Amino acid sequence: MSDKSSPTQPKRASEISEWGIETDVAVIGFGGAGACAALEAADAGAEVVIFELASASGGSTALSSAEIYMGGNGGTRVQKACGYDDTSDNMKNFLKTCFGSNADEDKIDTYVDNSLDHFNWLVEKGVPFKDTELKERAIMALTDDCLLFTGNEKAYPFTEAAYPVPRGHNLQIEGDNGGPLLMKILTEQVEKRSNISVNYETRALTLITDDSGAVVGILVRMNQQEVAVRAHKGVILCAGGFCMNPDMVRKYAPLFDKNLEPIGNPGDTGSGILMGLGVGAGTVNMHECFTTVPYYPPQSLTYGIFVNDKGQRFINEDCYHGRVGFNALVQQHNHAKRIYLITDVEGYGDYEKMSYLGAQVAGTGETAEELEKELELPEGTLSSTLEVYNRNAEKGEDPLFHKSDAWLRPIKPPFVALDCTLGRGTFYPFFTLGGLDTLPTGEVLTAERNVIPGLYAAGRTTAGIPRTAAGYASGMSVGDATFFGRMAGKTAATR
Amino acid sequence: MSDKSSPTQPKRASEISEWGIETDVAVIGFGGAGACAALEAADAGAEVVIFELASASGGSTALSSAEIYMGGNGGTRVQKACGYDDTSDNMKNFLKTCFGSNADEDKIDTYVDNSLDHFNWLVEKGVPFKDTELKERAIMALTDDCLLFTGNEKAYPFTEAAYPVPRGHNLQIEGDNGGPLLMKILTEQVEKRSNISVNYETRALTLITDDSGAVVGILVRMNQQEVAVRAHKGVILCAGGFCMNPDMVRKYAPLFDKNLEPIGNPGDTGSGILMGLGVGAGTVNMHECFTTVPYYPPQSLTYGIFVNDKGQRFINEDCYHGRVGFNALVQQHNHAKRIYLITDVEGYGDYEKMSYLGAQVAGTGETAEELEKELELPEGTLSSTLEVYNRNAEKGEDPLFHKSDAWLRPIKPPFVALDCTLGRGTFYPFFTLGGLDTLPTGEVLTAERNVIPGLYAAGRTTAGIPRTAAGYASGMSVGDATFFGRMAGKTAATR
Repeated sequence: MSDKSSPTQPKRASEISEWGIETDVAVIGFGGAGACAALEAADAGAEVVIFELASASGGSTALSSAEIYMGGNGGTRVQKACGYDDTSDNMKNFLKTCFGSNADEDKIDTYVDNSLDHFNWLVEKGVPFKDTELKERAIMALTDDCLLFTGNEKAYPFTEAAYPVPRGHNLQIEGDNGGPLLMKILTEQVEKRSNISVNYETRALTLITDDSGAVVGILVRMNQQEVAVRAHKGVILCAGGFCMNPDMVRKYAPLFDKNLEPIGNPGDTGSGILMGLGVGAGTVNMHECFTTVPYYPPQSLTYGIFVNDKGQRFINEDCYHGRVGFNALVQQHNHAKRIYLITDVEGYGDYEKMSYLGAQVAGTGETAEELEKELELPEGTLSSTLEVYNRNAEKGEDPLFHKSDAWLRPIKPPFVALDCTLGRGTFYPFFTLGGLDTLPTGEVLTAERNVIPGLYAAGRTTAGIPRTAAGYASGMSVGDATFFGRMAGKTAATR
Repeated sequence: MSDKSSPTQPKRASEISEWGIETDVAVIGFGGAGACAALEAADAGAEVVIFELASASGGSTALSSAEIYMGGNGGTRVQKACGYDDTSDNMKNFLKTCFGSNADEDKIDTYVDNSLDHFNWLVEKGVPFKDTELKERAIMALTDDCLLFTGNEKAYPFTEAAYPVPRGHNLQIEGDNGGPLLMKILTEQVEKRSNISVNYETRALTLITDDSGAVVGILVRMNQQEVAVRAHKGVILCAGGFCMNPDMVRKYAPLFDKNLEPIGNPGDTGSGILMGLGVGAGTVNMHECFTTVPYYPPQSLTYGIFVNDKGQRFINEDCYHGRVGFNALVQQHNHAKRIYLITDVEGYGDYEKMSYLGAQVAGTGETAEELEKELELPEGTLSSTLEVYNRNAEKGEDPLFHKSDAWLRPIKPPFVALDCTLGRGTFYPFFTLGGLDTLPTGEVLTAERNVIPGLYAAGRTTAGIPRTAAGYASGMSVGDATFFGRMAGKTAATR
């Protein structure tokens, strides 16, 4: 790139000789967050211009399964139809347990209190949800069923804090097509509004501030020219995370600097975060990313156990795949040279046909001792782990990790070990969970949590609801991006 | 505080009606970093003014043991006298292994290449080091001996990357008095220089920038008045870390938001970091802190094993106490309800007389099974761990964690378990390891790593050499603070 502008070096309004575009609200990025921000700002009466780097809308939302995470308030229409009562307290308790000290409790409260409203807003915009539940343990719904458990709701220790309710809302469409459908619907909504205009193939370069430090516009590059955009009510950064920026990942999230597979769109380079930093914004949660080891389907592998190179278990295997992935990564960060998933033939089941995991068979054994030897694990380690596990599983108990009895049964010889070690074939994707610190209103804050006038942000440009892979559930990021995108749009428009 | 000024909201020079103080270099903080910065800036010919919040010099350096971490270049005078040859490559390999993806390799290279020079500079200033070695495994030297192993040099996996050499340099003084002596000497050096003046009981409020964003001074409060300080060559922030600011710890280092005991001085509130952020500085490594479980002395406890509430070992117990502390904390973060140190009577030895640990005896047992039961660990867990450990220790091996054979011997009944669980008496101190991103020269960088003209920083206001408790060694923080303090002073003075 030959851009002379640097995202962390904002322009002063006094340096701008000509404003090429004037509007009320400038939205940077046309993914889930940007679309929702633009819609709400427009519906509150503002003139809106969206600037998108790519030549079409979509962002990372269109690449996702979009199992939007919603509930509380007694339940959404779908939750109720499927027989679930989900109180707001229950959902809040769950989310606060998911993210612990990393959590932004104000955001969680706002998100939950307005979650039913968000469901209804999406329905009103034309997003279809069928009143049915997918009961399998699945990484995503490939049917057009709506409701599914997408996180750790049924797993220890989350069950100690909240009763389990499914909150993933899959769109009514066959296959893994929820994200594209969601963005198609939101894009059509945007196109319907005469007070929103969209500029594709436009790169946001740096923010423009007045002498008091307030954000009054943004410099963009379109048609090979730098254009100064005056945004009278504010700029909303919805420019994605930074998983496509290896330097930023190494710098801010070193635990994830391990050649993991980035999932996101090419624009996820952190430019929105850098622009925010340039005008004094604070960042939070920059060291955390989503990651996973997608070991189901087949769900039968959940009857297996994960062990490290000491033959030790390290997780209850009935939890969410992202939580397993996070813990597997931590084990390997602490010098575990191998991670294995130990199963029996029945648990192995349809692995070869239906898995996304990519793990190869590392060994088999007629006995635990034989497998232990084949995997070169120290004598008495894996065999003891299996003995303890099986003896308790027989009784429906897991005194070590509290795996639910629904997934407890003795693992019977012959045994199979899948090699889930990073770098040996297993798929370890990631995306970033840190970004600008914002209020639930979408207002961007300094490191001391003072509001920066005129600057708003949503989606993975911010640190939102999901704060660690250890507590993540599918649908939390799209849920967060669409909901807080709306909040930012409303706040900016009514400034 | 009733200060109207906010560290993240810098003043513009154009708003300043009167400069109360004019100097070349303003140094904020009179601990190890600030003292060294002032000395080098003064010796390069600059006028220097130091501003210190407390009523005396010292900072957190004076509270430390000051076992300054130095070596490489064939060895310091003391290393050579004690028979050690320490190549620079060896020291670099060690430090890069300590901090992995978190490491700043440029800083490590600069630190090591100039480490012998730093030793000589300290000696020249009057810092006394005796040409003797303390051979015990100690948390600090209580004798006046100089050289000791203060980190993971002799432990796996560090031994795979570098041959073990001691690099902790304790000052020649009895008792834990290295820090106070170091600061006494540095303070006397400062007082000797006519071109340094010191203002105590002065609070730095916020930086002052010119229209281009360069730092040209700092606003301070002294004698109940706000005073604008013009610093023609620059401002050097040596204001410590943020372990005394619970909000910042929760926000940036949630893993350590667990009521750990902060070690630092009351000024470690992160104000230097916030002032940097206010003028567009980038931060790195904010999520990492030092922590520890100080389980030696007595060194005989190193013959024991640490286990979690699953009866699993998780670390080679011959490594540095900070590395054990970090891993114990991670275990507990992942819901381990107890951490035990299992020893025999011989290993227990002088625990009650000489330990800093604070852990209570949680149980004893004539057999492993009895102890397992008393600790309410699942049947077959601790007993299997002990069986595997003892069988291999007998052969001088630890196939699981590669503890060195120097610390391997079977643990013999009767057994004793010390409860090292956080919140149950055990001492878990901490201080922060994240801060402003700087070049080895001390120049402060934006998030895109552009230099901010006129702004310098050193010590725990920055992210320096030590980046995680898992790779820390005693003496690294004082080593880093004093060395990069000097670098910042020199760079500022010659601007």
